[in-house]
Amino acid sequence: MRIAVDVMGGDHGCGVIIEGVRQALARYPQVSSIFLVGLEDDITACLSTADRDSGRMEVVHASQVLTMHDKPVDALRKKKDCSITRAIELVKEGRADALISPGNTGGILSAGTIRLRLLPGISRGAIATVIPEPENEFVLLDSGANVECKPHHLAEFAIMGSIYSREVLGKANPRVGVLSNGTEENKGNELTLEAHALLRRLDLNFVGNVEGHDLFHNKVDVVVCDGFVGNIVLKTCESMARAMFGWLRTELMRNPKRKMGAFLAKNAFRTLKTRLDAENYGGAPLLGLNGVVMKAHASASDRAIMNAIRTAVEAINHNLNDAITRDMKYAAPILGGGEST
Amino acid sequence: MRIAVDVMGGDHGCGVIIEGVRQALARYPQVSSIFLVGLEDDITACLSTADRDSGRMEVVHASQVLTMHDKPVDALRKKKDCSITRAIELVKEGRADALISPGNTGGILSAGTIRLRLLPGISRGAIATVIPEPENEFVLLDSGANVECKPHHLAEFAIMGSIYSREVLGKANPRVGVLSNGTEENKGNELTLEAHALLRRLDLNFVGNVEGHDLFHNKVDVVVCDGFVGNIVLKTCESMARAMFGWLRTELMRNPKRKMGAFLAKNAFRTLKTRLDAENYGGAPLLGLNGVVMKAHASASDRAIMNAIRTAVEAINHNLNDAITRDMKYAAPILGGGEST
Repeated sequence: MRIAVDVMGGDHGCGVIIEGVRQALARYPQVSSIFLVGLEDDITACLSTADRDSGRMEVVHASQVLTMHDKPVDALRKKKDCSITRAIELVKEGRADALISPGNTGGILSAGTIRLRLLPGISRGAIATVIPEPENEFVLLDSGANVECKPHHLAEFAIMGSIYSREVLGKANPRVGVLSNGTEENKGNELTLEAHALLRRLDLNFVGNVEGHDLFHNKVDVVVCDGFVGNIVLKTCESMARAMFGWLRTELMRNPKRKMGAFLAKNAFRTLKTRLDAENYGGAPLLGLNGVVMKAHASASDRAIMNAIRTAVEAINHNLNDAITRDMKYAAPILGGGEST
Repeated sequence: MRIAVDVMGGDHGCGVIIEGVRQALARYPQVSSIFLVGLEDDITACLSTADRDSGRMEVVHASQVLTMHDKPVDALRKKKDCSITRAIELVKEGRADALISPGNTGGILSAGTIRLRLLPGISRGAIATVIPEPENEFVLLDSGANVECKPHHLAEFAIMGSIYSREVLGKANPRVGVLSNGTEENKGNELTLEAHALLRRLDLNFVGNVEGHDLFHNKVDVVVCDGFVGNIVLKTCESMARAMFGWLRTELMRNPKRKMGAFLAKNAFRTLKTRLDAENYGGAPLLGLNGVVMKAHASASDRAIMNAIRTAVEAINHNLNDAITRDMKYAAPILGGGEST
């Protein structure tokens, strides 16, 4: 198994990403080699003698970097030799089985969609984000790729999310819900009402509409919505968790008695923080592309990169994309084959 | 000042609501009397001799109750004599200056819109919910009344929310943002992009797009969105706060050391819980109606009802609806007078 890692485009420089690669290579012997894609000089400066001697890291030079300020489409126009595009090409050429990038999400998606193409039956790639709950975790998709969606897009997301939940997160029979403003069947906007009707007809464990109150209480494994709503929900949750921890910290530091309490209970806070830590998941898969593509956070730590590689390994092991292709074939008569975009 | 309180339709029966009325009467001497609207026998059974002797409670019989399962429109059709409609009529007739109801939100809105009518220039009533942050609080609107919106509706929400924030929450110059999937001006869906352009032209402290990450970090005072998105965001926040507290409690109870820590730090948790408690706000105003209307939570406690009455008193004191009417007049040339719905 060979994996391409775009080592540019992260907030902390390529050293942190290469350290994540080292950890992944140590843990996952099935990964025979990792392509480090980016500016050769920068990469070489980060490599140790042991790295070079391992024979499991291969530097692939890319002369350009697509920054967060660049337009996504520049990955295919002005910056054709950027690390994102080069990493995607390694997958396209069959030299790599998956790619991981902390770079410009839009750039990865647009270059990925054009170069790798979409899986048969899929009309839109989607970002799937795993969100932890006290007793579960759910996949939220689309969490930002597609601002405007049609009902059959949501149905595709449901199929892909369900397979991801089953194959990578290990849920036996993932519960799929459409995010709406109420659980009643007649609640929703035009998009979700039509998507609801479509999902009823698919071979999924469809639980109907879910509302905000159903999240975080182990009621659903796959939450489907358009990328506008998904992005807002994802960022609101991240922001709220951060605010609550900060708020609690401030309150706990107000006097010596509370400080002592916080000290005694510190492992409780730590458990929660660890569980809520997005780095456990390492990255969000871009589902629907004809290739395994993981988006790591721009500020990904070495541990996050290692976990993103782990997730890619699992997606490859479980032939995620074959499963999506198979299920989309069954769904095609209901979705109209996905030929419209 | 006289206020109508629909004492039916709450989860805990009319006794709890009447207790909230008692507390409000004790605290707010400017409230000369409160109409208790509902089934006379039920109400009478809850009244003490002191209540009757006070001369500040007046029972207004309504023979029907609009339940949560009833269609909103039944408040005007099958159940014309329900407590919601009767309370609204007290406002319409000028006998009451405001009304509070814990009942069917859709029913309050539809009966309120038809009977009281909307304020000049306003084309849709909106639910405004106050959400606490560590160092601030923001108004989210619409948080559920209007699933499908047009850009000028969002502009109306912005004007109403800004006035509410200033007059009732005391923000000197409320920062208004459009909830979107990114802060950049070009981020958004068709609705928010057009609303953004409209808001730029209004006399508001418009801070542009806000995203999920901007919530809970004192960056915005009024968050504007359609009722579909608003309802999802509101319920997601409520659900997540509840989940995090439950999660923390479980972790804190795992062993004696943590339990001791939790005991010592208990006031820190209590402060947070109190601050996050929706009952502090008591209810959500339905803005845009030609009358002060507060929706209390169905499960409102006596304290929540008291706080809802307090908020109504503030809205009356600050002539909230006059301010909205005035500002809408200035905005009319930009919004096209709001004559379209």
